[in-house]
Amino acid sequence: MNKKISIAIDAMGGENAPKKNIDALNIFLNKNKSNNDFIIKLYGDKNILTQEITKRKISNNKIEIIHTDGVVSDEATPLTAIKNSKNTSMWNAIQAQVNGNADISLSAGNTGVLLVISRMILKTMKEVSKPALAGLWPSKKGMSVVLDLGANIECDERNLVDFSEMGSALYKSIFPEKKPHVSLLNIGSEEMKGTDVLKKAYLRLKDLSNDKNFIFNGYIEGNKLMDGETNVIVTDGFSGNIALKTAEGTAKFIIDSLKKSLTENFISKLSIIFSYFSLKKFKSKLDPRKYNGAILLGLNGPVVKSHGGTDAVGFYHSIDLCYKIAKGNLMYQIKNNLSHLNVKH
Amino acid sequence: MNKKISIAIDAMGGENAPKKNIDALNIFLNKNKSNNDFIIKLYGDKNILTQEITKRKISNNKIEIIHTDGVVSDEATPLTAIKNSKNTSMWNAIQAQVNGNADISLSAGNTGVLLVISRMILKTMKEVSKPALAGLWPSKKGMSVVLDLGANIECDERNLVDFSEMGSALYKSIFPEKKPHVSLLNIGSEEMKGTDVLKKAYLRLKDLSNDKNFIFNGYIEGNKLMDGETNVIVTDGFSGNIALKTAEGTAKFIIDSLKKSLTENFISKLSIIFSYFSLKKFKSKLDPRKYNGAILLGLNGPVVKSHGGTDAVGFYHSIDLCYKIAKGNLMYQIKNNLSHLNVKH
Repeated sequence: MNKKISIAIDAMGGENAPKKNIDALNIFLNKNKSNNDFIIKLYGDKNILTQEITKRKISNNKIEIIHTDGVVSDEATPLTAIKNSKNTSMWNAIQAQVNGNADISLSAGNTGVLLVISRMILKTMKEVSKPALAGLWPSKKGMSVVLDLGANIECDERNLVDFSEMGSALYKSIFPEKKPHVSLLNIGSEEMKGTDVLKKAYLRLKDLSNDKNFIFNGYIEGNKLMDGETNVIVTDGFSGNIALKTAEGTAKFIIDSLKKSLTENFISKLSIIFSYFSLKKFKSKLDPRKYNGAILLGLNGPVVKSHGGTDAVGFYHSIDLCYKIAKGNLMYQIKNNLSHLNVKH
Repeated sequence: MNKKISIAIDAMGGENAPKKNIDALNIFLNKNKSNNDFIIKLYGDKNILTQEITKRKISNNKIEIIHTDGVVSDEATPLTAIKNSKNTSMWNAIQAQVNGNADISLSAGNTGVLLVISRMILKTMKEVSKPALAGLWPSKKGMSVVLDLGANIECDERNLVDFSEMGSALYKSIFPEKKPHVSLLNIGSEEMKGTDVLKKAYLRLKDLSNDKNFIFNGYIEGNKLMDGETNVIVTDGFSGNIALKTAEGTAKFIIDSLKKSLTENFISKLSIIFSYFSLKKFKSKLDPRKYNGAILLGLNGPVVKSHGGTDAVGFYHSIDLCYKIAKGNLMYQIKNNLSHLNVKH
């Protein structure tokens, strides 16, 4: 491992790449002028990337460009990818971790392909029953981690316990000063509610609670996800994906309805002028770009997936997330949490 | 069955009962002065109910009070209820359907007890594999039906097909002029996504689509639930409950954040005055009280559950829902839809 934190970025993945990716990098470098503990490795077409970097007058001293010819297309499927994605910018940005050239990899490209080739290249940690995709959610008190968001449709109790330990490790890597509170997503808060898998996971987590890595809060219902009482919300990939997407859809529906009400007629349009700053602040607080970046946990190296359609600000937040969790030593935290688990069981 | 639509109301169930219930009835009667096709049967303490009705100067000609001594308490569990809830206002309001004294029953009392004693008293229809709890959701184009919301944690494909037919029947009883579009909640829209149960249900619904009762739209993801392209959203009770509660929690979180932004300082407070009418309209459109009332489908008679904590306006919407679906002949629609299914399979 390098002494400096090394972040490998697929510079060609996502909508409007590589312009967006380089704009994002520019924001990141400007915000981290005084930090010298990292290096950014850009994977993609060297000529195009050099042009974009020169255009923006970005200094070269924290960047390295590694030329790769191919790019994974949006149309590629996980099946075709295994054959065709070798030596693409996405592949090489992940492969960098195997070669000891990076601590973390980031891409905004094709999600299905990214999940499959990440597993192929980095492989599942021997201590982990299943890798999981974790996301960041806004809450009344800041930010929570939710996992799994769709990598595993069906999960058993061992998976859910592993997710609890990995999610806690992720939370600690971002917020080192806090001991995370973990909850299991369920359809009621009483101990007798839910599926057999949930009941078994509940008992194991209760047993592990407060020992070292996390405090177990028990079950949580969907309407409490954003209250901020819990830092790590654990669920199978099916329910997690339903919850995530329903929350997205609800937020969009409400914001759209609000916009419509505020622009329906002259008086309401006028009212926007007066509430402009309040609404701006409101919008900024809930800006989904701040939460952009899902983290694939449980492989021998972390991979961050940015939304493909996000803009430069959104992709900047993903770079920043990579920086934070690499600095917070995510891989050490995960190994530490899981070793504890293996001793207990 | 009576010629007039007969709605049996548990007048003693829910917070602030019976005052709230009678206030709600008052609103309903005022809005339906010109309609003479219904009668409301109130189950509860005759003295108290007569007092409340007299206080509000409500005319007696569309009301009948049936005295019952007991009330199901909020602390009662489904287990204790079987022994103790006989001859309570809730029990008798449901029993009324068995005796031919009502077409539909409504309660804002203890949910767990209501679900259990409804099944005991009315029994599952012989054509139905499992009863389901259905709810109404706001959408860009009006209102959708979502089921199951928590009555059945685990479902097989036959259950999901039955839910599709029953949900379509419910939708048609409320909106008789429309042929409903049905979708299955899943974590992707491609045919290959999801659990085995979903894939099997998908094939059966595709086969039934456009035949008579509904048009099958395929899979729907959580972020599209409120787009209004689908009228009936079908899922197992676990995912449905997660989706419903996550939507509630997200809506609350956003509205709370908006309120906070708009009252943070003097300028933002001032801005509320100018956006008052727009925000009022916005609030009214999304008022959860308009969607108050979950419908238990698949028993030999429909039962509507109002939120216990709602106010008179919310409970009024539940009474109105009972009136609409009884008028739309829900039970006939369900039998009709299911007979079609039994011929097909």
